[in-house]
Amino acid sequence: MNKRDYILDALETLFEEGKGGTASVSEIAKKAGIAKGGMYYYFRSKEELLDALVERQYEHVIQSCSKYVDELQTDAITKFALLLKKYREMTDNIVFDECLHLLENAAIHQKSLAKILNSLSNVVAKIIQQGIEEKLFKCSYPLQYAHIILSVFTFLLDKGIFEWTLEEQVLEMKALASLLERGLQAPEQSFIFLYKLT
Amino acid sequence: MNKRDYILDALETLFEEGKGGTASVSEIAKKAGIAKGGMYYYFRSKEELLDALVERQYEHVIQSCSKYVDELQTDAITKFALLLKKYREMTDNIVFDECLHLLENAAIHQKSLAKILNSLSNVVAKIIQQGIEEKLFKCSYPLQYAHIILSVFTFLLDKGIFEWTLEEQVLEMKALASLLERGLQAPEQSFIFLYKLT
Repeated sequence: MNKRDYILDALETLFEEGKGGTASVSEIAKKAGIAKGGMYYYFRSKEELLDALVERQYEHVIQSCSKYVDELQTDAITKFALLLKKYREMTDNIVFDECLHLLENAAIHQKSLAKILNSLSNVVAKIIQQGIEEKLFKCSYPLQYAHIILSVFTFLLDKGIFEWTLEEQVLEMKALASLLERGLQAPEQSFIFLYKLT
Repeated sequence: MNKRDYILDALETLFEEGKGGTASVSEIAKKAGIAKGGMYYYFRSKEELLDALVERQYEHVIQSCSKYVDELQTDAITKFALLLKKYREMTDNIVFDECLHLLENAAIHQKSLAKILNSLSNVVAKIIQQGIEEKLFKCSYPLQYAHIILSVFTFLLDKGIFEWTLEEQVLEMKALASLLERGLQAPEQSFIFLYKLT
């Protein structure tokens, strides 16, 4: 493992201990067993460190989700449901989630949402494409539909941006399920998994 | 007009002159004809000033769009198209737009997107409701559909967050048009205005 990853691991551990948000660069250096001077060779500020950790974590989520879906041997609708389950499992307990929702970290947060949308939309588009081939869906814009779906998950359902009640979240998912069933001309109740999981 | 609005007007004028982004609190005070000390009674920082200007501007956009739609005597689909046109006219040349897209203003930017989504979704939901009564649409979740539509406009199409080419933007609008036509079970080509305008 390289030094950069050591440092990010140290920050991650501090987050697990509940101290990541308030830890100074010196404290992170100490945890990583690196001299503070050496630290600045890799990261110039706490913000840069957090940015890199977020980037690394989401890169991991995206790679894992993508690989997971690629290896599934099943129809497009089941893949959709399993992708959502995997994504939620991987993102529900991200250690820096609370910190990312602080106003001072809005720029890093925004960048991470755009990254997830851009990357995962390729995975979702591939699933839609498969559904078209399986004659489950009809759709002329798989990638663009994927962007719209992911706007809902990354932006509209983001707990740091909106404060929906659980009831409102379920309604949102029911609406998305109805919109997708009709929009993709999919078999009735195909997208029931969207709100059965919530 | 109250003093607070005087100050915000001064900042707005500075933006029109291309100097809003870099203007200091002192310069804004000078422009407003207010002592710097008096200024701090209303706003403690440049950030607070920008936040208040953005809030005031978007409040104006939302109120105007809402009133405009309420006064229209036409069918739901035409209202949809006219609302979009009005919204674009009002937001295309907002003076602080570039400044809002700087990373350091990401928190204010995010807040403004959430405000627009929350407020305008009521206007859009009312139009969908009217369409249902006119038997143009079928939809069980007007408000939630409105949230999804506005996620596309506020987040996915935001020029500071994503960098779509014009061609990609048109594709995005064609996809949304197809999704809405099917999702609302609307007459064919009802939403053609989404991409004819782009």
